[in-house]
Amino acid sequence: MTSLTPPLAELIGKPVHDIDTPALVIDMDAMKRNLARMAEFAKKHRILWRPHAKLHKSVLLAKMQIKAGAVGICVQKTAEAEIMVAGGIYNIFITNEVIAPTKLARVAALTQAVAAHGGQIAIAVDSIEGVSRLAQAMTNARTTVARLGGSTATVIDVFVEIDVGQQRCGVKPGQDVVTLAQEIRKHPALRFAGLQAYQGKAQHLHSAQERRLAIASAVKAVGIARQLIEAQGMKPGLVTGAGTGSLVLEAASGVYGEVQAGSFMFMDADYAQNERDPAQPQFEQALFVKTQVISTHPKHVVCDAGHKSHAIDSGMPKVHAFDEKSGLDYLNGGDEHGILQPSAGSTRLPSLGKMLWLIPGHCDPTVNLHDVMIGVKGGLRTGVVHGIYPVDARGALT
Amino acid sequence: MTSLTPPLAELIGKPVHDIDTPALVIDMDAMKRNLARMAEFAKKHRILWRPHAKLHKSVLLAKMQIKAGAVGICVQKTAEAEIMVAGGIYNIFITNEVIAPTKLARVAALTQAVAAHGGQIAIAVDSIEGVSRLAQAMTNARTTVARLGGSTATVIDVFVEIDVGQQRCGVKPGQDVVTLAQEIRKHPALRFAGLQAYQGKAQHLHSAQERRLAIASAVKAVGIARQLIEAQGMKPGLVTGAGTGSLVLEAASGVYGEVQAGSFMFMDADYAQNERDPAQPQFEQALFVKTQVISTHPKHVVCDAGHKSHAIDSGMPKVHAFDEKSGLDYLNGGDEHGILQPSAGSTRLPSLGKMLWLIPGHCDPTVNLHDVMIGVKGGLRTGVVHGIYPVDARGALT
Repeated sequence: MTSLTPPLAELIGKPVHDIDTPALVIDMDAMKRNLARMAEFAKKHRILWRPHAKLHKSVLLAKMQIKAGAVGICVQKTAEAEIMVAGGIYNIFITNEVIAPTKLARVAALTQAVAAHGGQIAIAVDSIEGVSRLAQAMTNARTTVARLGGSTATVIDVFVEIDVGQQRCGVKPGQDVVTLAQEIRKHPALRFAGLQAYQGKAQHLHSAQERRLAIASAVKAVGIARQLIEAQGMKPGLVTGAGTGSLVLEAASGVYGEVQAGSFMFMDADYAQNERDPAQPQFEQALFVKTQVISTHPKHVVCDAGHKSHAIDSGMPKVHAFDEKSGLDYLNGGDEHGILQPSAGSTRLPSLGKMLWLIPGHCDPTVNLHDVMIGVKGGLRTGVVHGIYPVDARGALT
Repeated sequence: MTSLTPPLAELIGKPVHDIDTPALVIDMDAMKRNLARMAEFAKKHRILWRPHAKLHKSVLLAKMQIKAGAVGICVQKTAEAEIMVAGGIYNIFITNEVIAPTKLARVAALTQAVAAHGGQIAIAVDSIEGVSRLAQAMTNARTTVARLGGSTATVIDVFVEIDVGQQRCGVKPGQDVVTLAQEIRKHPALRFAGLQAYQGKAQHLHSAQERRLAIASAVKAVGIARQLIEAQGMKPGLVTGAGTGSLVLEAASGVYGEVQAGSFMFMDADYAQNERDPAQPQFEQALFVKTQVISTHPKHVVCDAGHKSHAIDSGMPKVHAFDEKSGLDYLNGGDEHGILQPSAGSTRLPSLGKMLWLIPGHCDPTVNLHDVMIGVKGGLRTGVVHGIYPVDARGALT
C-alpha cells in the first residue's frame, strides 16, 4: 500500500492539514504530558510500572515508556512479544495463558534470546497442565541450547493468575494458588514470580465508588492468596495488575507492587466517561482519527471514517469540538462511513471537504486497525507532523 | 511478524490441526460452491455482477471472481483501488464519494493506468462540487499525459448516487439527479454512466417481507430518477447496487442491470439470521476464525479469540457446532479473549487446548483484522491447507 500512496515520511514537517483521511493521529504534546504524569505518579507512590503494549503495539512508544522509567512492558500475545524483542525490548511480561506447544516453544526461544541482552520474559498460568507444557517447552529449549554450547541457566518468570473479579481467566484465591505455586517451583527452568491480578471489568465502571468497591474486593482476594502462599513457607513475590481506570486504587493498596496501565498514553471516549478519582493524574485525550466530510445533506453529513477506522466495541466515537457551539453527534454509518448530525440545541453542519477529529470509543482495538500512527506537535489545528509511528504488532494475534 | 513466526507457506499441505490460533480460515470447498451459485444466478437472470472487494480485499479472490464471470469489482476506497490495480485488476468501480483533491489526483492516475490495459475506472458522485473536483483532477492528469505524448482520450465513468432508503450518501430521486447528470456531461473527461443505487440497510432486515418492501421502494426511486433523466433526452445508463441480502429482488426488478453483492462468498452470523427468500441461492458459511481453549473453569472456558480477531459490530460470533449436542455460546471477553458457556440445555464444556471454530458476526470488518486468510480443502475437521490468501488491501483506508 505504502508503495502506491505518497511515502509517509514525506509528511514529516508538513502541516496537519496535509494528513490524508482517515488517519490515526497522536497529539504528541498531550501524549508526552500523559507519560510524564504517569512517571511522576509511579515515583511518588514507589510502585513499578510496566505499561501494556497491547494498546500501542509500537516499538518506538515502548522505548519511550522505558526511557521514562517503565521497568518493561506487558503484552497479551506471543507474536507481540516476538515483535517487541525484534525491536530491542527485552523485559516483557506475557500477561496471558499460553497453551499451544508450538507457541510455548516460541516463548521459550524468546526467553533464551532476551537473556543474552540481560532481559527477562515472564508469563501467566492458571492450570497445572499449563505449567507442565511450559516446563516441557523450557526443557526442550535448554536441551537445544546445551547442544550448541550455550548457557542452560535461563529461567522464565511465572505469575499465577488469580481471578480478582473479572470472571475470565485465573484461579480463585484459594488452595489452587498454592498448588500452582508449588508446581512451578518443581521445575528448574521456571521461577515463581508472584500473582497476576488484573481486574479488567473495574476499568470501565464509570462511578469512582463502584471502582473503589471492585478494587477493594480485588485487594482482599490478593491478600488471601498471599497469606496462603506464605503459610506454606514460600515468598509471595510481586503482585501485578491495574489499568488506567483504577491504578490509583491498586497503587494505594499496599499489596500491588506493579501497575500495568497502558491506555493513559492515549485515553478514549469510554475512559472520558469515568468519574475522576481525585488522586488520579489528569490524563488528556491524545489519540484522534482525522476524517473528512464527503457528502452533505439538509440534516446530516457523511464522513469517511467508519468502523474499519475506529473500534466501536465501547460505543461510537465522539466528535472533538474545538468550538463548543458546533457540536456534532456521530452515528454508525457502517464499515467506511460515519453519519454526523448536529447535537441537541444546534443546527450547524460542516461543509463538504471539512476536516474533523474523532475521539475513538476504545483506544486499543482502534490502534489495531491502523498500520501507522501519525504524531503531531503544536496542536491539531496549526501543528505539524513530527513523526510516523508504525503499529509494529498490528494484527499479531497468535 | 512473518519473519519471526514460522513461514506461512510451510503450512500448505499440512492438516487443519496445524493452523495456529487465532486464524482466519476459508472453507475453500464451500466458498467455491458459493461462487458457482452466484455465477449461475447472474447468468440465469442475465444480470451483470461486480462483487464488492471491500469484503475480501484480496487480489487472488478478485481474480477468481472475474474468472467465474464477474465484469470487474467494486471497492470503497481509492487505496483499495490502487492495490487492486497493482495486482492486475483493471475494471474497478469506486462506489463512494471522493472529495479530497489529493485522492482525486490518485483516482485520475488510476484511470490513465488501467486504460493501458483496456480497463475502466468508475466512481460515484452526489454533489456538483464533487463533479467539479473530479473534472479538475482528470483535466490535470490529461495535461500531464499530453506533455508525455500519451493519449488524452481517457475518461472516467461517473455514476450519480441516489439515496434509495439508506439515508447516508446520495441525492434524492428528483431534480438533483438530472442536474448532476447534466453537470457530468459538460466535462469531456467524465462519462455519465448511470445510477449507483445501493440499499445497504435492506441487507440486514431479517424478514423476507421487510426486505421486499425496502427494495420495492428502492426500485420505485430508481424508476423516478430514470424517467427524469430520459425526459431530458439523456440515456439513463446502468443501474447498479444490491447486496447479498437482497440481490434476488434487484435482479428481478427489471431496472437494475448490475449487482454488487460480495458477502455471498463467505457469509456470516448476521446473514445467517435472514429469513431466506425462496429465490435466493443457498449460500453456505465459508469463513471461520479458528480458536483454542486457553483457560478452563467450572462454568465457562476462555478461548484466544477476542474482538481483535473478529468484528463485533453485528454481534458476537457463533460457535460452529460439528455436533449439535455440544452447543456453546460466545460471550464478549474483550480484545483478546472469548468466554464460552454451554448453550441452554447443555452442560458440556471443551477441555484445555481444544480447537474450536467461530462464525464471525460480520464478515467484511473481520477480514480487515487479518493479514492473511488460510484456505482449507476437505473440511474443517480432516482437511488440509490448500492456499494462503493475503488480505492485500487490509487497512487501505484512504
